[in-house]
Amino acid sequence: MTHFNTVVTLDRIQAALDRNDLDAAIQAIEALRPPDGALVFDDLDEKDQLSLLPNLTPAISADILENMDEADAAGLVTAISARSAVRIIDQMEPDEAADLLGDISPQHAQNILARLEKPEEVRPLMLHPDESAGGLMTAGFLTLRCTMSARAALEAIRAWELEPGPISSLFVVDENGKLCGEVSLHRLIVAAPSTRLADIVDRDIIAVPVGTGQEECARLMTHYDLVTLPVVGAHGELLGVIDIDDVVDVIVDEATEDIQRLGGAQPLSKPYLNTAILSVAKSRIGWLLLLFVTESLTGTVLRLFESEIASVVALSFFIPLLIGTGGNAGSQATSTIIRALAVGDMALRDGLRALWHELRVGLFLGAGMSLFAFGRALTWGSSQQLAFTVGLSILAIVIWANVLGALLPVLALRFKVDPTVVSGPVMSTLVDATGLFIYFSVARLMLGI
Amino acid sequence: MTHFNTVVTLDRIQAALDRNDLDAAIQAIEALRPPDGALVFDDLDEKDQLSLLPNLTPAISADILENMDEADAAGLVTAISARSAVRIIDQMEPDEAADLLGDISPQHAQNILARLEKPEEVRPLMLHPDESAGGLMTAGFLTLRCTMSARAALEAIRAWELEPGPISSLFVVDENGKLCGEVSLHRLIVAAPSTRLADIVDRDIIAVPVGTGQEECARLMTHYDLVTLPVVGAHGELLGVIDIDDVVDVIVDEATEDIQRLGGAQPLSKPYLNTAILSVAKSRIGWLLLLFVTESLTGTVLRLFESEIASVVALSFFIPLLIGTGGNAGSQATSTIIRALAVGDMALRDGLRALWHELRVGLFLGAGMSLFAFGRALTWGSSQQLAFTVGLSILAIVIWANVLGALLPVLALRFKVDPTVVSGPVMSTLVDATGLFIYFSVARLMLGI
Repeated sequence: MTHFNTVVTLDRIQAALDRNDLDAAIQAIEALRPPDGALVFDDLDEKDQLSLLPNLTPAISADILENMDEADAAGLVTAISARSAVRIIDQMEPDEAADLLGDISPQHAQNILARLEKPEEVRPLMLHPDESAGGLMTAGFLTLRCTMSARAALEAIRAWELEPGPISSLFVVDENGKLCGEVSLHRLIVAAPSTRLADIVDRDIIAVPVGTGQEECARLMTHYDLVTLPVVGAHGELLGVIDIDDVVDVIVDEATEDIQRLGGAQPLSKPYLNTAILSVAKSRIGWLLLLFVTESLTGTVLRLFESEIASVVALSFFIPLLIGTGGNAGSQATSTIIRALAVGDMALRDGLRALWHELRVGLFLGAGMSLFAFGRALTWGSSQQLAFTVGLSILAIVIWANVLGALLPVLALRFKVDPTVVSGPVMSTLVDATGLFIYFSVARLMLGI
Repeated sequence: MTHFNTVVTLDRIQAALDRNDLDAAIQAIEALRPPDGALVFDDLDEKDQLSLLPNLTPAISADILENMDEADAAGLVTAISARSAVRIIDQMEPDEAADLLGDISPQHAQNILARLEKPEEVRPLMLHPDESAGGLMTAGFLTLRCTMSARAALEAIRAWELEPGPISSLFVVDENGKLCGEVSLHRLIVAAPSTRLADIVDRDIIAVPVGTGQEECARLMTHYDLVTLPVVGAHGELLGVIDIDDVVDVIVDEATEDIQRLGGAQPLSKPYLNTAILSVAKSRIGWLLLLFVTESLTGTVLRLFESEIASVVALSFFIPLLIGTGGNAGSQATSTIIRALAVGDMALRDGLRALWHELRVGLFLGAGMSLFAFGRALTWGSSQQLAFTVGLSILAIVIWANVLGALLPVLALRFKVDPTVVSGPVMSTLVDATGLFIYFSVARLMLGI
């Protein structure tokens, strides 16, 4: 439904721009909800984007920039006049403004920052890396003192010009700015007007240090069903608040990156169809080449057993079947383990338990596949000896693949590498060469060649 | 940090239970935050769980059941006395209570339902499938009439016993219960007391019909940064509200299922390390066997070209390298396309665009790999003709794999099958047999054998 509307609007906007009717184009974009406006805007040429951006209502331009790819947004802000940029950035959420200013040249950023209405809300946020709690948090929130009465707190809220939006947790600090706890707007309304906040504040809340990684923040908010997460400095002073909607974006983006990496490709920074052919190819060629070089090992193994293949050509018929099954089993194991690590179902110290788990799973799977492969080899008219060789090899290969599938992601994490490097393609490539070695060694023993 | 605390607590609770000190065990669990309590509780034996559950504070037992695996929770509720069950379920969120009652025997559910304090909040929710908007929504929310004044609305909120929690969007309905819009608690406080809600309600809100799928709800809330999503019936009447924290769980679970399926395994319903070996094996053996049967085709292709292999044994050295690279390229393409479909970067009608995108990406990747493979074959001491064969084959195989990787997920979606069935293992298996056919056909032409 949404998708359909935006397509129709895109056509209308493009037509308006083509006949130089800027007003009609502006009207069409402003009629959309901001995230849809951003989608449509994203599909326009850069030339059209540049002529539209300074002429839209600043709040709408701000929404569009917030929803765009970061590098594209930075490019646009650099290209328009500083006056227009200031007008738009004044309307952005402080955390988004800080991210954007961090992506343009420091000189230009300082110039814009100096002319903002509330530079003090944005400046401190620019100190933190984008992917930490400090980079996710917003500084645009109201803090209440624990010595205030409920009446005074409500007065402060009324006097605050910014609407806090649907998330209305209010944080309470002591005289040193140290976080005491949280009080909901609802509780404030229900309390007797003279109640001191110190008496109704909920002190049992979860807060994170400013350097906490964004994945850890996402995990905490998911596990504890939080909609806001306060961020504190070294002395417990409240620095900012992370809202759940920013974390939802983190969760979705991280899952996308994991899935792309597990497929053996570098994550793309933009939506797939908007990514140029060459960028997509570039995101994949590195792994493809690396895997190719590793896979070359299979040739080395095969040449090692050249005489065996020449004497029993039928051995080669089973090559793809055996190493394919090994790769599949390894891929099953590794994707399960990687996800268990990512969602916190499993920690690094559970590594040995996981290995033992997969070893036994591999034993069951290997035994099942072994019987099946034995039968299949016989129906292909192979000798009983060859069928035994195939059956025994597949048992060993599947167990080996499962162990490798459990071991590699845990080892990666141990050495602080993202476990998703152990993608399905990496697993099947590693299992291919080692699987062939297992197969031909078994064959040499069983067939006496 | 969290993880560490729960481990220590688990040991302490287990020790208390072992010496039959139920009080100490209860105290230790109740000292934890509910989601941590649920984690620890989950690790106990069923016998211990059954003796603890009716003796914990009902609100805490309710939190534990809400956070547990659904089948396990249903088992426990069936095993304890109806009186205890009623006391606990009375403390659950209405949507969670409805899900739980839907998982136990209808007779038992009716019995418990009849004795609940507010059966009217739970009963209507039981009509909707778990995985739809109706199954996700809660009916425990306050509705305001658009004819009310701001003062009357605040009175109603004060009189409402249930704390609405940190999410405090309030929905406004007309005299027929039809949804008019939303008003934030903040706006209500700021408005003059005599203002009618009809004058301050935000009517431009997004609502979904009760039958909407949970993935679509998650996508809307993510795209529009919503923290609540109202659910309406056929005539626009407000039936319930979906909170963002329930949707975050959906997003995380869906990503987990997608990753497990992309690895070629059926999703697990419980955390990995708590899933029995046989269940894990069962979740994988089906695909492993199906892929094995499909992979058998490689044997058929190889036997078809038996004379070519016998005359040029060196041809077989390149088998794993060629089909492995094809499988990797296909796996890269398919994981990108599947994720683009899942997050809405791409719709079904973009299928042809994606195909054209991948065809060109495949051309670039194939050309690059082809040069590399040609060189590699020469350094292995192959004849120039064989090196040409390998280079040409890899070009054709990579293009073919990319096209297949774009086509299959789109076709799956077209026939209403989950696109994640086109997992990495499925891709590499399909590319293996067809890739061999391409390779040996090229060899027959180039080498004249």
